[in-house]
Amino acid sequence: MEGPLVLKIHPNDNVVVALQPLPAGTTVLPGIVTRQPIPQAHKIALVDIPAGGAILRYGVLLGHAKADIAQGDWIHEGMLDLPTPPDLDSMRWGTHLVTDLPAPPVSSWEGYRNPAGGFAGTRNYLGISTTVQCVSGVLNVAVERMRRELLPRYPHVDGIVPINHTYGCGVAINAREAHIPIRILQSLARHPNFGGELMVVGLGCEKLTPEMLVGAEDANPDNLILLQEQKGFEGMVHALMEMADRKLARLNERRRESLPLSDLLIGMQCGGSDAFSGVSANPAAGYAADLLVAGGGTVLFSEVTEVRDGVHLLGERCVDEPTMRKLADEMRWYDRYLEAGGADRSANPTPGNKKGGLANIVEKAMGSIAKSGSSPIVEVLSPGERPTKHGLIYAATPASDIVCGPSQLSLGIGVQVFMTGRGTPYGLAAAPVIKVCSRNEMQAQWPDLIDFCAGPILTGEATLPEMGERLFREILEVASGRKQSAAERFHLYNDIAVFNPAPIT
Amino acid sequence: MEGPLVLKIHPNDNVVVALQPLPAGTTVLPGIVTRQPIPQAHKIALVDIPAGGAILRYGVLLGHAKADIAQGDWIHEGMLDLPTPPDLDSMRWGTHLVTDLPAPPVSSWEGYRNPAGGFAGTRNYLGISTTVQCVSGVLNVAVERMRRELLPRYPHVDGIVPINHTYGCGVAINAREAHIPIRILQSLARHPNFGGELMVVGLGCEKLTPEMLVGAEDANPDNLILLQEQKGFEGMVHALMEMADRKLARLNERRRESLPLSDLLIGMQCGGSDAFSGVSANPAAGYAADLLVAGGGTVLFSEVTEVRDGVHLLGERCVDEPTMRKLADEMRWYDRYLEAGGADRSANPTPGNKKGGLANIVEKAMGSIAKSGSSPIVEVLSPGERPTKHGLIYAATPASDIVCGPSQLSLGIGVQVFMTGRGTPYGLAAAPVIKVCSRNEMQAQWPDLIDFCAGPILTGEATLPEMGERLFREILEVASGRKQSAAERFHLYNDIAVFNPAPIT
Repeated sequence: MEGPLVLKIHPNDNVVVALQPLPAGTTVLPGIVTRQPIPQAHKIALVDIPAGGAILRYGVLLGHAKADIAQGDWIHEGMLDLPTPPDLDSMRWGTHLVTDLPAPPVSSWEGYRNPAGGFAGTRNYLGISTTVQCVSGVLNVAVERMRRELLPRYPHVDGIVPINHTYGCGVAINAREAHIPIRILQSLARHPNFGGELMVVGLGCEKLTPEMLVGAEDANPDNLILLQEQKGFEGMVHALMEMADRKLARLNERRRESLPLSDLLIGMQCGGSDAFSGVSANPAAGYAADLLVAGGGTVLFSEVTEVRDGVHLLGERCVDEPTMRKLADEMRWYDRYLEAGGADRSANPTPGNKKGGLANIVEKAMGSIAKSGSSPIVEVLSPGERPTKHGLIYAATPASDIVCGPSQLSLGIGVQVFMTGRGTPYGLAAAPVIKVCSRNEMQAQWPDLIDFCAGPILTGEATLPEMGERLFREILEVASGRKQSAAERFHLYNDIAVFNPAPIT
Repeated sequence: MEGPLVLKIHPNDNVVVALQPLPAGTTVLPGIVTRQPIPQAHKIALVDIPAGGAILRYGVLLGHAKADIAQGDWIHEGMLDLPTPPDLDSMRWGTHLVTDLPAPPVSSWEGYRNPAGGFAGTRNYLGISTTVQCVSGVLNVAVERMRRELLPRYPHVDGIVPINHTYGCGVAINAREAHIPIRILQSLARHPNFGGELMVVGLGCEKLTPEMLVGAEDANPDNLILLQEQKGFEGMVHALMEMADRKLARLNERRRESLPLSDLLIGMQCGGSDAFSGVSANPAAGYAADLLVAGGGTVLFSEVTEVRDGVHLLGERCVDEPTMRKLADEMRWYDRYLEAGGADRSANPTPGNKKGGLANIVEKAMGSIAKSGSSPIVEVLSPGERPTKHGLIYAATPASDIVCGPSQLSLGIGVQVFMTGRGTPYGLAAAPVIKVCSRNEMQAQWPDLIDFCAGPILTGEATLPEMGERLFREILEVASGRKQSAAERFHLYNDIAVFNPAPIT
């Protein structure tokens, strides 16, 4: 075995992480010998840690040892207590505002200007919004026909995206938190990749009315089909085909143009993380985020339960007090939401996270926030709220990949950058997803599904700035349509799972 | 206009319902003249009702008049207060056990015996369960290939059904109510229409593990594919195709046989109801339910918020005290669930219900429970609990069509009978849905989508027992595969929206 066997992240850490599976009895550092076999990405104690002693990684407290731990021991998820999360009332702001961000090597990209203004599109899709799940069966059949019969006539259109979801009816539409799913669906309808063309399919009796979804002015016959008004299934399909044809003809006129980075909105998310996610993939994404922000671009990061334990560090990066206070409020809201359901943030890590060496949510969160890079946080958004600033933005969403994805999508992201340790074949139909893996082994396992491997950071084959800049260039390649993501190539699209914390009826 | 213009349901009622749109000034009954134009299905006051006076339909209190109502006035949803719901602590049981049910004209049907015992199948599908949404993108691509390349080789298999859902990860898997979605997915995997063949697709790092979904014994390589263990996308598709081929070959041996009605499980649901639903479609379904039960069959009805206001009447039909108490408990659970989200049962009716003449949830519920017919209630099931008895069973689910459908489906229904007033093109991929409309106008609007029109009950062209028996025969025709439902014919399938009252992370 060549090169280092373990990785120490912060000088204060009393653990290191195994870069590869290590047998018991391996000398990993001078005087430090593994006492058990250590799985890849798992932690090894650098010193004896007595019961109750602090376990430190990333220079922060992951938790306290439940029992005595000896130098060279494998430290896994059963062995430490979860510490109290950072206090939200005493958070500071503005004490860590980095201004010397790295300079981006490229300052423009090729996108579709949005007729409504705002961030530009990265693809040219006909998006078909639905008010309610009831219409999805018919719409899916019609979309198949549109793809077969209409799309080939419009070579400048990249595809047709039905926005199917399970909200819209059978829900408490006036409940306290109902504004969250409603806002998400309202924003999805106007995603920049849909070029300002609205096509809305409703049933005619649902609670989420077309007027509520797109506004009374736009809920007009040019944009809206109500299935209850059509003559049978054949009438429905005819109406859908006819409207799609009209919209496709207009979308077919769209062309890319050279745009500044300030027209680009990127979402950062991670899923299926391992203990390397916070060392390779997420820091590379963070470096790319810094380059984007330095060039005038806008980057979202999200996932409340995965920033909760590092939120004090984010507070210090908020540009003003209201931003920091809103960040704290989003954490409080989610703490209460979980508590009402008899859960807390410790419910977040998955069996895969644990197999991947993440001992608890503190360790996962410290890795997760690395994707935000180092730039100041200029805005904090509640779920479904749309960005109004440029720069690094915290958009509160659940951490669940399947729900965070559509939430970020609704805010208008042109590309999602998705960091994974264990691997997930995740994709979104309405925007390209660049999958970034944390280890070379993952890329070897899924060579056709992983778009970008951050593993060379671990092996020392490349530095973090080098990989971050490569990822930045990859983002611009995909955003500009010069490259397809793996998910696009194989048509891998996950459902639009809309966050609905309100009850159904 | 021929025949009666209005319909009075119960001798004690002080309102009638307009059978067709009526202009102001129409004499609808001797001495009763409409004072405003009355939309079809809406209510007309038979007498002067002072402010605070009771408005009675179905012989029950719909609510109290908010202001004076004059004889001949149109009574719509803004005009009455919602009464207190029936008290759950003082409910009686066993005081109304009907024993003289009508005799069924047919006593057998043709179904697929379930190798595991229990209710029989009505279709022969390869069902593909998923542990987590992450795998859906890949699975959907593979299913398309299976349908194209494999299915034509197995003529006795009716289709391939992926059970995609948004549960499985990013959820609080140990939360208080997490057993509900988990139970639903566990049961769906073993639906009788899947012939006992388990095929499970997991990712490999999710919280809902394959062992949790199908049990440790069945989570074996014969039934389980983990995408993280495959070599890239091509490896995943290869593994999926290979397993599907093996399962399809076994399913291809299944044949229908003549079975007693006791092997049949039918679900009753309504959606997009109007004020006729409780007069034509739901009572016809109730009559068919009585015939099924009299013949030894089993019928489920559901939808908590749509029985809440008539629950005292259902209590009287419970065969014993524990059954009644469990019914009350399910109502209490849902009352609290809604309250926690800042809502109550009044959130149930939709704009379409109101357009269709349903003034509030009391009126909707009284129509809704008519689909249970008149037989005794032998069992009450919590969400996701599977039936253990034969006869009429109350299976608690949300009323939302999109959520009630998969909930009933998970319990093993062979056919769902779906009553609609306003019309919804609803369908389930794993079991046929018979759509029954309440009015002739609806069938005229959607002639190809409505399977059965109960409108002749309103026009006097047929009696309730005649239509109920016709519907009973239709259910057996579809269950036996001699007839396809409209949803099957057009491939209209709604998503599997799994009820998850627990938080996500």
